[in-house]
Amino acid sequence: MKMTKDIGRIVLDHGTGGLLSEDLISSIIIPRLGSVSTGELADSAVLDMHGKKIAVTTDSFSIDPIFFGNGNIGKVSVCGTINDLAVSGATPLYLTLAFIIEEDFPLADFEQILDSVREAAQEAQVHIVAGDTKVVGLGEADKIFVNTTGIGYFKHGRTHISPRNIRKNDNIIVTGLLGNHSIHILSIREGLGFESRVLSDCAPLNGMIAQVLEDHAPDIHFMRDLTRGGLGSVLSEVVALSGLGVEITMDKLPMQYEMKMAADMLGINPIYLANEGNISMFVSPKATNDILNKIRQHPYGKHASVVGHVTDDLIKRVIGLGDDGQITIIEPLYGRELPRLC
Amino acid sequence: MKMTKDIGRIVLDHGTGGLLSEDLISSIIIPRLGSVSTGELADSAVLDMHGKKIAVTTDSFSIDPIFFGNGNIGKVSVCGTINDLAVSGATPLYLTLAFIIEEDFPLADFEQILDSVREAAQEAQVHIVAGDTKVVGLGEADKIFVNTTGIGYFKHGRTHISPRNIRKNDNIIVTGLLGNHSIHILSIREGLGFESRVLSDCAPLNGMIAQVLEDHAPDIHFMRDLTRGGLGSVLSEVVALSGLGVEITMDKLPMQYEMKMAADMLGINPIYLANEGNISMFVSPKATNDILNKIRQHPYGKHASVVGHVTDDLIKRVIGLGDDGQITIIEPLYGRELPRLC
Repeated sequence: MKMTKDIGRIVLDHGTGGLLSEDLISSIIIPRLGSVSTGELADSAVLDMHGKKIAVTTDSFSIDPIFFGNGNIGKVSVCGTINDLAVSGATPLYLTLAFIIEEDFPLADFEQILDSVREAAQEAQVHIVAGDTKVVGLGEADKIFVNTTGIGYFKHGRTHISPRNIRKNDNIIVTGLLGNHSIHILSIREGLGFESRVLSDCAPLNGMIAQVLEDHAPDIHFMRDLTRGGLGSVLSEVVALSGLGVEITMDKLPMQYEMKMAADMLGINPIYLANEGNISMFVSPKATNDILNKIRQHPYGKHASVVGHVTDDLIKRVIGLGDDGQITIIEPLYGRELPRLC
Repeated sequence: MKMTKDIGRIVLDHGTGGLLSEDLISSIIIPRLGSVSTGELADSAVLDMHGKKIAVTTDSFSIDPIFFGNGNIGKVSVCGTINDLAVSGATPLYLTLAFIIEEDFPLADFEQILDSVREAAQEAQVHIVAGDTKVVGLGEADKIFVNTTGIGYFKHGRTHISPRNIRKNDNIIVTGLLGNHSIHILSIREGLGFESRVLSDCAPLNGMIAQVLEDHAPDIHFMRDLTRGGLGSVLSEVVALSGLGVEITMDKLPMQYEMKMAADMLGINPIYLANEGNISMFVSPKATNDILNKIRQHPYGKHASVVGHVTDDLIKRVIGLGDDGQITIIEPLYGRELPRLC
């Protein structure tokens, strides 16, 4: 398997959230930044400010196409960053918003993007506090790129949500349908015709997460949004960081039939597809039912399902159990050349 | 003068820091964002966090060329955001770092950019706390774009640095040579041959600013970095926001001879050129000498000069006095089609 140093150039797979993305961070970015980086450089960080903790996260968005059936790059840019903060247990408060726009971009399109930014920010109850707009020449960018950086606080002082808190027998909840955002975007891009039936799941989940944290904070050991690299990548990462194993029951994975059909056509396993309004939660067995019921009451959580649990498998790996008893090893993704989904 | 709504498209001038940039913000972005924005959306904001004030700023960088004589896009991306925080009176603490990279970008170039990020962050004593890397296809971005978002705190609880605090007779200090960064970049871009003699002034100025604030905080009424649109745009903005006038003595403007020659060749007034390590300070008359001396002791401030003062001119405008007694009105810039200098 060729890693970054062997390749010597940036390739699309460096941006798709798989092993190669991780390798770029761990073998190039962190060592080069040395002591000025916090050593982890995750997309979300917990920091000290005036002796209290704040959460900070940054994300650049280069989604193609910028407009899709039920959203656009503006909505994705707000939701992506809100969700990053929310899964760290933080309450999102502030967003910054920076655009790089290609010359000749239609103002009406820009306004539509701003409208979506406003609607998503309103729903998530965050304020946009600082902005920047750069314009580059024709052909120097593809229409518009957006960066949002989010800042949040910890309402009840909790900062214990971490892969290190995952325990054997924890149940794994997935809160929404897998793969819909990616299949929607890919279907538009490739002209597959599924986009009217498979809609993007893009949504700000901080409200849903806050409701569950309110009553069940100590039982929620870890959360992660299922964006680039999908559930498969999150589970692989959890196994690597926690030193435990994971067992998934494949037919419990919440999936829409048409999404699955499209994924089959494209030869992609939906477990690796990026979602924009879907998270995984690792929760204690005793609280699982209460948490699941609470999530299902929320409009963004009605398809929530317990998809598996944490094991103490000595060979740290992610196992998928088929309904025919078949066992699949869910390998970490190297990179899938599915860029620009977010 | 055609404004954004008449043009109906994004043009290069929307990104160059002149009237058209402002118009985009005030006539399109702020109204569309409505109540979710803080209403000003300056590139730096002062916010409440745990009952205390923090400063937040964001900036995307699309400088072309990405490598220049004495720096690269990595250095500019750190210094630009550090300086934005520092002129608000804040002490920079944390930076986020997000890349959009064109496929096939050489890893060695990326490493060199990261090295410059590290060096600038080290000098500025900030930590890089969160990151993101997106890769787009060949031809979908021009090599590499960087976003940095900065967070700082107010060491002595000061948040009074504002155009509203500018008073009649305040002196205006410019801390460094005008125009060097822009002329250096333009010279490389246009093959003018000045780039070895006119170097970029790009530098993190938080150290220099902290030294002056330490002893003279109450006498420093306003500071602003002289980036896009240069000194001319800052003065125009100050006049618009403070309701006062400004008088500049043209031959006090600190300028390098070769920079001036190059600017003449290009037909550009250096007063509008972007700098990356140069700020303006509006200070009380009684403290002016002490402040100027302190700035001049710092390596980044050795060319500092009092360039003019604030008047109560009823016709709010910026006046430039020539050594021949000639009076120039320094008009706000509409846009100069000098994109991608930062």
